[in-house]
Amino acid sequence: MTVARRAGSTSERIVGAAVRLFAAKGFDATTVQEVVEAASVTKGALYHYFGSKDDLLFEIYRSLIGRQMADLDAIVAAGLDAATTVRRILVGLVATTARSVDETAVFVREMHRLDAGRLAGFRSERRRYHETFRSVVEQAQRTGEFASAVPADTVVLIAFGVVNQLPTWYRPDGPKSPERLGEEIADFVLAALRPTPG
Amino acid sequence: MTVARRAGSTSERIVGAAVRLFAAKGFDATTVQEVVEAASVTKGALYHYFGSKDDLLFEIYRSLIGRQMADLDAIVAAGLDAATTVRRILVGLVATTARSVDETAVFVREMHRLDAGRLAGFRSERRRYHETFRSVVEQAQRTGEFASAVPADTVVLIAFGVVNQLPTWYRPDGPKSPERLGEEIADFVLAALRPTPG
Repeated sequence: MTVARRAGSTSERIVGAAVRLFAAKGFDATTVQEVVEAASVTKGALYHYFGSKDDLLFEIYRSLIGRQMADLDAIVAAGLDAATTVRRILVGLVATTARSVDETAVFVREMHRLDAGRLAGFRSERRRYHETFRSVVEQAQRTGEFASAVPADTVVLIAFGVVNQLPTWYRPDGPKSPERLGEEIADFVLAALRPTPG
Repeated sequence: MTVARRAGSTSERIVGAAVRLFAAKGFDATTVQEVVEAASVTKGALYHYFGSKDDLLFEIYRSLIGRQMADLDAIVAAGLDAATTVRRILVGLVATTARSVDETAVFVREMHRLDAGRLAGFRSERRRYHETFRSVVEQAQRTGEFASAVPADTVVLIAFGVVNQLPTWYRPDGPKSPERLGEEIADFVLAALRPTPG
């Protein structure tokens, strides 16, 4: 359970305002007072949830990766065939990433500010996400459902590479919806994993 | 022809020292005096080549993308079949990116500081790189050498996504050489582009 969920809409509004300000003006140039005004909350309310601007930065990414991890767990728990599982994971991940380009851009730019403990926490969450996906690929490679010419760890790097880069090129007014993009990425990954006949 | 090439080793030494300092300490915390000392040059020599720290930041990426663009042009000019061309491009790009993780990490973190003109210049260089690769894929899709299920622009995003993300996960002491990684990425991309029989 995340802070944002426990706290309901007040802390979500604060995080949303912080994301917009950090994305537009940069982290350094944004003051706590500006976040308070943009979120229409009192300074006391902000400090009830977040001890500092650094806490806000951390929460931006933590709540995003928390939602994505919950989505991933639900898809894997459904126990569908590997191709459907991989397709659902990629289409869902592209959609949530496309809807969170500001969060991701701010985080990528400022994550080197996080203290060692938080950076380790973020890395371990990300590792769990990657390892869950990798084990889906690996298991299907063992059963022959997927081709095993390329090791599963490299498949993970390729499939998530394009998603992680998305905030650098995605435009909400572009010609393709996030779902369409996700389907194309899934088509490509699944074509590469198609077992060769014979 | 780049400034680095015209100027030979002095400006290259300055850029190399700047990369190491920016990567280790951050751009803001690094002074021109520290760059001068680390490069063993005079301040006058630095200002002969670079008007400011911003110029250094720009040159770091510009010289990298300049080398990569020259490599790409040479591979395409060789006029080999599409599969060999795509393999050479990806293996070469993974190798140069793996050897330049500091340059890329610094640039990704600090590129939002570039003024509008330079940002536009960088984007147009990157676009030319992407479009050259895309036209190789598109042409092979037209002749049937590659499958055309996934549009060439999405193929480009996937193939370059993993390369652009490389600085976030690549470790020089990791188990795979850049060449091995590049071959695996090329294997995957070419497997996805293999025409379906019938």
